[in-house]
Amino acid sequence: MLFQVLTHFPERYHFYLESGLPARAIKKQLFRVEPVCIRDFADDSRKGRVDASPYGGGPGMILQVAPIDRALQSLPESLPVVLFTPRGRRLKQEDVSRLAKNKKGYTLVCGYFEGVDERVAEHLVDYQVSLGDFILGSGDLPALCFIEAITRLLDGYTGSAESTVDESYTKGLDSVAGVNDAVRLLEYPQYTRPREYNGWKVPAVLLNGNHKEIESWRNEESVRQTKMRFESK
Amino acid sequence: MLFQVLTHFPERYHFYLESGLPARAIKKQLFRVEPVCIRDFADDSRKGRVDASPYGGGPGMILQVAPIDRALQSLPESLPVVLFTPRGRRLKQEDVSRLAKNKKGYTLVCGYFEGVDERVAEHLVDYQVSLGDFILGSGDLPALCFIEAITRLLDGYTGSAESTVDESYTKGLDSVAGVNDAVRLLEYPQYTRPREYNGWKVPAVLLNGNHKEIESWRNEESVRQTKMRFESK
Repeated sequence: MLFQVLTHFPERYHFYLESGLPARAIKKQLFRVEPVCIRDFADDSRKGRVDASPYGGGPGMILQVAPIDRALQSLPESLPVVLFTPRGRRLKQEDVSRLAKNKKGYTLVCGYFEGVDERVAEHLVDYQVSLGDFILGSGDLPALCFIEAITRLLDGYTGSAESTVDESYTKGLDSVAGVNDAVRLLEYPQYTRPREYNGWKVPAVLLNGNHKEIESWRNEESVRQTKMRFESK
Repeated sequence: MLFQVLTHFPERYHFYLESGLPARAIKKQLFRVEPVCIRDFADDSRKGRVDASPYGGGPGMILQVAPIDRALQSLPESLPVVLFTPRGRRLKQEDVSRLAKNKKGYTLVCGYFEGVDERVAEHLVDYQVSLGDFILGSGDLPALCFIEAITRLLDGYTGSAESTVDESYTKGLDSVAGVNDAVRLLEYPQYTRPREYNGWKVPAVLLNGNHKEIESWRNEESVRQTKMRFESK
């Protein structure tokens, strides 16, 4: 799986490649990330500048359409293009699972400054994605989140096939009273050793070896946690 | 502003410090990030291992409470503690603005593996935060998003005070027909030069210099984009 990333900061992707599970997955050739610097596609006359003031006035600078278009045309692989923007569809695990089925990969476009010339979204992009209703200074962290969320679903990524499945969100429950149908269950609380720390004890039910009771406690906790979250919003 | 980060990968924070606006803001001493390696606080007998199997069975490994507690106790500053977990409150710009008012900073705890011993959330943490309904492999990207979202609001971060204000989400509208009251308006589309590229034109209204018309077009577009997003969910 290949991620071609249009960015101002190719070096931001190296940290990601060099530690933990992503490093291992790349070594196993499960995926690769090829960052491309947008500035390399600036108008000749402007020496690496790829932003300009917005038409109609207003603060800040806007990333231009031409350098993005030229950078996209330079890429070796033609892959679906994803733009990270606050106006994008909010990323959800169901989208991640669906997007992970395209094993060829994606081209990711990171926004900067006050935004990206709208003609990029209108003409050059297949998906517009947002992480959520909060504002970041660049598209690099969303791009890395997108890469991590998708690649961790690749066969062989964690080493154990089980552990990417039995988790929050992927265990859908069709109807939790008071909670929308589309909602997935959050994971139950987990505990590990020691049994007691600082006077704080692991719930007795998890230690009694009765798997039926454990399963039923975990289901109740998942439902309770999920409801709490949606009621507190 | 100080961010003390409990992580498995202190090196993941360096990339962030070394490029773009974060690098400039750190140079101006607007904030600092001090990563602390959780593995340094492992039980003596376990040589850097800070995870163990969950009580009650199940796949994967759980991050232990004791190393987290010892790492927290070792920190030079006592700051509000934030844990990144799928069960956390979904981060929204209004929370970011509120959290940015604490100029002392935060201690961030990154989860790994299948999860974190629940006693961390029960006893050691002030806020539980989630980026959204998607699953990542580690808490490092959420921690970096949290840091970027908050620090970009610091005075002097962008160099122009304006540009952090006039943006999506921060311009609240109390009632957009059909859209919940709590919703903030998304930003209008932006365009910059050239006026025409590839046959793709900038909307004429933005070029006519009539500021009243421009403002009214932008307001309509903001409302339209915001409604589209909420209707498409």
